[in-house]
Amino acid sequence: MTTRRQLLEFAALAGGTAAVWRIAGALELLPRFDEATPLQLAPARGRRRVLILGAGIAGLVAGLELQRAGYEIELLESAPRLGGRVLTLRHGDVVDEIGNRQVCQFDEAPHLYFNAGASRIPATHRRILDYCRQLGVPLETHVNASHAAWMQYDDFLEGRRIRQREYHADARGFLAELVAKSLPEASIEQPLDAKDVERLLQFVTQFGDLGADRRYHGSPGRAGPVRDGLYIAGPTREPVSMQELLKADFWQSAMHFGESEAQSSVLQPVGGMDMIVRALAAQLSGRITTNAQVIDIRTSPDQVTVTCRHGDGTRTFTGDYCLDSIPGQLLTGVGNNFSQGFRAQLARRPRGKLAKIAFQMRERFWEAEGIYGGISWTGKDIGQIQYPSHGFHGRKGIVVGGYYLQPGPADRFHVMSAQQRIDAAIQQGTALHPDYARHVENGVSVAWYRMNHMLGCTARETDAETLGVLRQAEGRHLLIGDQVAAHPGWQEAAVLSAHDALNRLSAREQQA
Amino acid sequence: MTTRRQLLEFAALAGGTAAVWRIAGALELLPRFDEATPLQLAPARGRRRVLILGAGIAGLVAGLELQRAGYEIELLESAPRLGGRVLTLRHGDVVDEIGNRQVCQFDEAPHLYFNAGASRIPATHRRILDYCRQLGVPLETHVNASHAAWMQYDDFLEGRRIRQREYHADARGFLAELVAKSLPEASIEQPLDAKDVERLLQFVTQFGDLGADRRYHGSPGRAGPVRDGLYIAGPTREPVSMQELLKADFWQSAMHFGESEAQSSVLQPVGGMDMIVRALAAQLSGRITTNAQVIDIRTSPDQVTVTCRHGDGTRTFTGDYCLDSIPGQLLTGVGNNFSQGFRAQLARRPRGKLAKIAFQMRERFWEAEGIYGGISWTGKDIGQIQYPSHGFHGRKGIVVGGYYLQPGPADRFHVMSAQQRIDAAIQQGTALHPDYARHVENGVSVAWYRMNHMLGCTARETDAETLGVLRQAEGRHLLIGDQVAAHPGWQEAAVLSAHDALNRLSAREQQA
Repeated sequence: MTTRRQLLEFAALAGGTAAVWRIAGALELLPRFDEATPLQLAPARGRRRVLILGAGIAGLVAGLELQRAGYEIELLESAPRLGGRVLTLRHGDVVDEIGNRQVCQFDEAPHLYFNAGASRIPATHRRILDYCRQLGVPLETHVNASHAAWMQYDDFLEGRRIRQREYHADARGFLAELVAKSLPEASIEQPLDAKDVERLLQFVTQFGDLGADRRYHGSPGRAGPVRDGLYIAGPTREPVSMQELLKADFWQSAMHFGESEAQSSVLQPVGGMDMIVRALAAQLSGRITTNAQVIDIRTSPDQVTVTCRHGDGTRTFTGDYCLDSIPGQLLTGVGNNFSQGFRAQLARRPRGKLAKIAFQMRERFWEAEGIYGGISWTGKDIGQIQYPSHGFHGRKGIVVGGYYLQPGPADRFHVMSAQQRIDAAIQQGTALHPDYARHVENGVSVAWYRMNHMLGCTARETDAETLGVLRQAEGRHLLIGDQVAAHPGWQEAAVLSAHDALNRLSAREQQA
Repeated sequence: MTTRRQLLEFAALAGGTAAVWRIAGALELLPRFDEATPLQLAPARGRRRVLILGAGIAGLVAGLELQRAGYEIELLESAPRLGGRVLTLRHGDVVDEIGNRQVCQFDEAPHLYFNAGASRIPATHRRILDYCRQLGVPLETHVNASHAAWMQYDDFLEGRRIRQREYHADARGFLAELVAKSLPEASIEQPLDAKDVERLLQFVTQFGDLGADRRYHGSPGRAGPVRDGLYIAGPTREPVSMQELLKADFWQSAMHFGESEAQSSVLQPVGGMDMIVRALAAQLSGRITTNAQVIDIRTSPDQVTVTCRHGDGTRTFTGDYCLDSIPGQLLTGVGNNFSQGFRAQLARRPRGKLAKIAFQMRERFWEAEGIYGGISWTGKDIGQIQYPSHGFHGRKGIVVGGYYLQPGPADRFHVMSAQQRIDAAIQQGTALHPDYARHVENGVSVAWYRMNHMLGCTARETDAETLGVLRQAEGRHLLIGDQVAAHPGWQEAAVLSAHDALNRLSAREQQA
């Protein structure tokens, strides 16, 4: 009899990965699409103690789950605050950036905050959402992609801003027109019969909002209202030509942001992302030591010993395991007895450079422009302006005035003083909002590359070899945090890393 | 010297509408793109009295503005309640559908409501949003289009539901592939040079997430996570073929809903759409008479006389003007001295059939599926299931279990009893959520075609000739409401109609 495994091997030979996936799906051997491998942490067998290094999302989640399973935990955090790169800045908060210490000057009000690190939770991020549900963290919608917001690129339309809905409508229109033109004659590899071709013509007509002649003449319904479009049939705007559309780097990635990891729906905790940190930490009271900077980690066959600076002296902790979320770029400087291979891969992992700046605006001028949340995009260093998804029509508002992800803009931003950053971001933002400067009351910036206790953020995806090594236990030490995820920079990745480490810890305990 | 007008006439001859638009824009003769013609209502000259018929959005807004401008107003509403087709149903509310009276069985809780009429405010609807701002109506985001929600069509994938993100990703992929295949040889009418063609190839590669071979092989990043995609490089799902995609009527309109009038951002008042009605009505206290059914309207050179049934008798009101939002299908039955031409067009206006049904669900099972607001689409009569954009992770929830806009489904729905509607909508909804029935606690439906004081809702767009006649004053009588808008069915259209009538009333007063 053919086993399921043999069937899959045959499928792999015959049809490659896709065939394996299809057949495995049919055999119900794979988890349902978008279903995650669950956390499987068995109750502690006797008195077991786990040291957790770093009180970011990975460390806090690991602590909560271990505590639930009956483990003793000891959570050590080097900073005076919890949360790691979940950092919500409000009135009076200190930004502990090395050589660029700032105090947040926002007014004191619940809606005036800046999520300087994690700021959105895609609805697909089921594990972090489940903690929000379990812990009663109120959520609201985060508007990530809004067609109402602006786009501006110096090479495009002579630098003039237009609404993203105009670009989207015209790009869809011209793409559809290209397909419609080429269709009847095109060499289509897929076996489309005459009926399929006719249907495809109708499809592209709908997709691009083409005219009866299968040509694109603009789409008033999609590109936005011209005068009072609901009431009177006003003149239509002239579409932007395909050649012109191609000049805007918008299409390289920003245009497709709404189709990406952070596609709709996206959520945010009411009042700031750190509400999640507070809710997790409230479950672990008494088990967290802050201002405890780890200086040495020794793993042995029986236990792990961690030494840290604390107060004026040092303290030493021992445990049966150590789950360690210290960022790779800092961990390389901590004394340890890890293997050479592990240390080499740790050093190889890239150190990300994400930075952001936020402004308090004296009025919510963007709402008068019909923008309620979402992102305006530009080719300038700031990259984007993000508008708040909450506090609509309220007094003042915080906008993210720059999001520096690419190395060039990030490098230029890092070396500026706090005031230089503000000046540059205002000047560049003026391309998106001509009156921008006049609305700014104050600004605050966070360059994670220079932030104390962190010195990096959101690296590019790490290669499989490095990940493979970093995820392996070094004795009784397991690395956690988004740094060991294939796609870092998400709270969900941090949770996944914690769950994965706990599953491995549990399996090892079961075998012991 | 050439006048601006002559220039425009020349442009029209030479280049058609688009050229007129371009040149008029250059001459700054047109309002800025998406800027609306403002309300221009001069202060009342002496003691002037306006009768307003119907306390929906158009009537309430007209009343507020007239009152602000120093006019006396008298607002007559035939129903015992205000709001017209802004109807939010909560615990214990009565649905006054003729022959199908229902009492809403929802639990009593702020988040358990059903916007049976207007339910979303696109960010482009500046006038209604401005009233929310002026009157302090708190707003939150309404998630309209969500890639996370399901789609299901009987002819597609043998009736299996998939996530909309899968369909979008695959459709974009195959469209882009078609363009990429045809591009080098295609006869492109627009003058694209070699550099443009190369750029266009890159463009479609990004647009469709094509491989290096310019072919589409699926898009794990867009189609959704396979297993824990952030953490491990799982197997990719196999894309749905173009032929199969074409079998789902999804592409006829639902697929493009996120590009339509209701594109992101979309808003909703916190707690229900009728918060707007309450806020408007609070400004007009003492000036509104409910249960006043108009039976006769006479307009003369000097005044308008309106007679209505009220209590056990009739009452007569006189005013200098009458702004009338009585639905055309009811107004035809009211005694009047309107012109034959006006009456003929009134009778011609189509009577819309929109209906909705909502269910109270004992748990928010869709959130466990990663759906937070948005719409699942199906080819069945229910058309869609809408999930709440508020109360996330809370106790229970109200989903819209059917939205009957097309004549066929609406006709079938109208003739059912309240219970038959519930049974049918549950049965059809099971195609989108296999466990649907087990979650339903109770349901309530509203067929506007049969609703007392209304008998219709959201007709198709009315032709320009009919609109032209209906918008003309009949003596001192002016028709208002979304029924005189080119695109009815929106609160914004009702506001536009009121503003337009007020502008004409004001102009006439200035000339008098």
